[in-house]
Amino acid sequence: MYEMHFAVPMAGAVLNAINTRLDAKNIATILKHSQAKVFFVDYQYVPVASEALRLLMPELEGAAVAMPSVVLPLVVVIDDIDSPTGVRLGELEYEQLVHNGSAGFVQDEIEDEWDPISLNYTSGTTSAPKGVVLSHRGAYLSTLSLILGWEMGTEPVYLWSLPMFHCNGWTFTWGVAARGGTNVCIRSTTAQEIYSNIALHKVTHMCCAPVVFNILLEAKPHEPKKITTPVQILTGGAPPPPSKLEEIEELGFHVVHAYGITEATGPALVCEWQAQWNQLSRRQQATLKARQGISVLTLSNVDVKDLNTMMSVPHDGKTMGEIVIRGSSVMKGYFKDEIATAKAFHKGWFLTGDIGVIHPDGYLEIKDRSKDVIISGGENISSVEVESVLCRHPRVLEAAVVAIPHPRWGESPCAFVTLKRDFSGTMTEADIVAHCRKNMAGFMTPKKVQFVGELPKTSTGKIQKFQLRELAKTLVVTETDQSTKKSTQLKRDQTPRYRNQAHEQIMASSRL
Amino acid sequence: MYEMHFAVPMAGAVLNAINTRLDAKNIATILKHSQAKVFFVDYQYVPVASEALRLLMPELEGAAVAMPSVVLPLVVVIDDIDSPTGVRLGELEYEQLVHNGSAGFVQDEIEDEWDPISLNYTSGTTSAPKGVVLSHRGAYLSTLSLILGWEMGTEPVYLWSLPMFHCNGWTFTWGVAARGGTNVCIRSTTAQEIYSNIALHKVTHMCCAPVVFNILLEAKPHEPKKITTPVQILTGGAPPPPSKLEEIEELGFHVVHAYGITEATGPALVCEWQAQWNQLSRRQQATLKARQGISVLTLSNVDVKDLNTMMSVPHDGKTMGEIVIRGSSVMKGYFKDEIATAKAFHKGWFLTGDIGVIHPDGYLEIKDRSKDVIISGGENISSVEVESVLCRHPRVLEAAVVAIPHPRWGESPCAFVTLKRDFSGTMTEADIVAHCRKNMAGFMTPKKVQFVGELPKTSTGKIQKFQLRELAKTLVVTETDQSTKKSTQLKRDQTPRYRNQAHEQIMASSRL
Repeated sequence: MYEMHFAVPMAGAVLNAINTRLDAKNIATILKHSQAKVFFVDYQYVPVASEALRLLMPELEGAAVAMPSVVLPLVVVIDDIDSPTGVRLGELEYEQLVHNGSAGFVQDEIEDEWDPISLNYTSGTTSAPKGVVLSHRGAYLSTLSLILGWEMGTEPVYLWSLPMFHCNGWTFTWGVAARGGTNVCIRSTTAQEIYSNIALHKVTHMCCAPVVFNILLEAKPHEPKKITTPVQILTGGAPPPPSKLEEIEELGFHVVHAYGITEATGPALVCEWQAQWNQLSRRQQATLKARQGISVLTLSNVDVKDLNTMMSVPHDGKTMGEIVIRGSSVMKGYFKDEIATAKAFHKGWFLTGDIGVIHPDGYLEIKDRSKDVIISGGENISSVEVESVLCRHPRVLEAAVVAIPHPRWGESPCAFVTLKRDFSGTMTEADIVAHCRKNMAGFMTPKKVQFVGELPKTSTGKIQKFQLRELAKTLVVTETDQSTKKSTQLKRDQTPRYRNQAHEQIMASSRL
Repeated sequence: MYEMHFAVPMAGAVLNAINTRLDAKNIATILKHSQAKVFFVDYQYVPVASEALRLLMPELEGAAVAMPSVVLPLVVVIDDIDSPTGVRLGELEYEQLVHNGSAGFVQDEIEDEWDPISLNYTSGTTSAPKGVVLSHRGAYLSTLSLILGWEMGTEPVYLWSLPMFHCNGWTFTWGVAARGGTNVCIRSTTAQEIYSNIALHKVTHMCCAPVVFNILLEAKPHEPKKITTPVQILTGGAPPPPSKLEEIEELGFHVVHAYGITEATGPALVCEWQAQWNQLSRRQQATLKARQGISVLTLSNVDVKDLNTMMSVPHDGKTMGEIVIRGSSVMKGYFKDEIATAKAFHKGWFLTGDIGVIHPDGYLEIKDRSKDVIISGGENISSVEVESVLCRHPRVLEAAVVAIPHPRWGESPCAFVTLKRDFSGTMTEADIVAHCRKNMAGFMTPKKVQFVGELPKTSTGKIQKFQLRELAKTLVVTETDQSTKKSTQLKRDQTPRYRNQAHEQIMASSRL
């Protein structure tokens, strides 16, 4: 996969890295939509790839006359280079193919820097996957962005805890090469694999979504859970709860928080650290670091706007608006989907679908996905804010908050909570509610708390809130909190601002 | 000057920073050629600026009818902001002008990123100054290049030992801002000013030509000569003698060596450090570091080519060729000089006029300016190599080597040497020659050594070899070295490769 990030563009082709966690049906859908000409398959994924190809066959047969251009891709299996398995899917094996290549090959020089370099299908939490087309220029600038924003120096030792199919590894596929670094690849993201490879290869850098923090923090008793020299972590993909930032940094990891979306070729914001913050307490630092930050150097502009007026929100840390971006690394569009592409832009700005605020110091903070905002008695409630408070509870491992229908307020927050594995006592809904009441405004306090063994996640580790919303509809609201009545009634006349028809339509983007 | 680097482009204008060491005649020539509309003058330079404007007047009067477009620029004096002097040249004063500005000013958004951002006149060691036109795109990419290549992190404290008029401060005018840094500006580049400002402001970074090393090394007894924390130096503008690199690093400076030319918006090569070199002796490190290095990330390509065939030289560290570059940050051209512009390019490559080799590890090393190569008995001698050996002599401060006519070999090396100030004994030509004979091939040994009090330099600190060549013609060769006869005769049939008519014509570029 790493070599493909260079070989494919150098051959003048477009790279379509496929999420290895997808099932055969999804893979078949992507292969059909992308019209891939060559299909490289790691030996481990031969069964699912084989099934995906089988699913394409009937379509092929049925459409043979009407669509003569639909052909199965050429398949190349990538066997294990250290201990070959002999697993094949057709004739070709990758190392053999490379061996037979021409030493005199002259790489393709692109004539237009805006030509596509890669096609990444979004994981699609709600809708069908869309193919994000990225350009050479955008990939190049985004790569420089992240090296700069993260201050990744020369000769890093980079651990691939983040999959390379995930928006081209947030461009670090190219970035590690640009820095003359070493790539450490692992087949599974377990505490055992991560910690032992950090020690073995003296890892200096790794990227991961905040969910991986739990893997690192919740290592099983027999697994290592120590690092001896600091490891730089770049995190993104979801707002990291400040409490988790605190815990992970106590282990010796140094976290930089970035915000990106596939449609921006990865990075759009980095929470650039300021030396003066070193004086603050670790909790204060974590709160500052949980913010998404400022525009990366290579984007033209990032802003938070009221989409109705396209005016920027005041820098007060309170007024919410939609995060919008402009610049060279914004995608060319969704492949073969002009309607979705048109909906994703408004007056030259790409609409991220994320709702945020701008603090007085110019740093942005995400408050929610536009579709995840809870509107309770006319009041906008950020599910991210409620989740952050829930995660501060010492017994809580993860939390997700969605809207639950409420007879009086229209919607109310409903919390789904998983507890830490090493906890053996009892916890009640009332315990959680009491913790919330102490730490947030009454109207934000969840009206229902449901304990679950695990939160439903997409193949890229994002929590599937639409599933939780369906589940919430089946639950009964516990009216524990009367104190909220007054404050919400006072503001009942306010018009819900963010979740409206326009927003439902433009839920086009996919945060990394 | 720093503010101008932002204000002028934001106003949609082009910045023409003028070398403050030029005389009135040169300044008048530039003002006339650039057709500057506004002329900002620091109060310290009012006398020379006033004289330059006076020189333009007669032309203006004489040409009033024929050239009605020739008008004197609007003059704005920049008074000292801390202790105003009241010095004026006309009505306008800078701070007052800023004060009267509109707070609602909306900055100009360029429509074409290739539009010019700045016009920099080369110092012209031999020919009339040429105006190098740089683009927004090139400046942007070069800025990123140097931050990356130097690994300058956030919040640097940057000392302006390098003038900002020098190729826009090698783009650090913009680069320091991009990193949220602090600018420390000094009016004179003395050891006193440099060391005391480093201590006062906790300077972390500075740029300078290798000649500044001598200022730092040769601090007078009453001047400070110590730094307590490491200061990062980026050096360029001339090949730094390895011995000077050793000495300056012993003081606690950490040097990164870059190679740039005004025509490439600054950086083209950086000698990127490799961790494995940390094991080497300081002398070996200095030798590696004296090489110009590898292409910066944002250039398309740097190569060393035989200009006759346009073939790349082998990576053997020996075969010389001309350093050529391609990429976005190469200048748009010389302002109003199509002929010089055309001559500066060959088959899509910009010709730097520098002669170099490529080492087996891919690192480039400059051997000479094409016009400075000495051709002795058919053998190419790099003046830079001979100078490096001369500087290793413990009594030598600086050295410059040029060709002297020789009755037998056509040309021979002639060395001009300045001795260190704290040296009070006697030194003879024979001492120097003996030192050379020990440390270099016989045919490279100078046939004439001339001690001088100071080497002639341009306003940007470059040694004016053409003056030394004139001087050398008046000297008599001392035939001290018979041993060279054999080796040179063996190779006499070789055709001198680098200095020819074509090269004399393309002496267009000006190394930083």
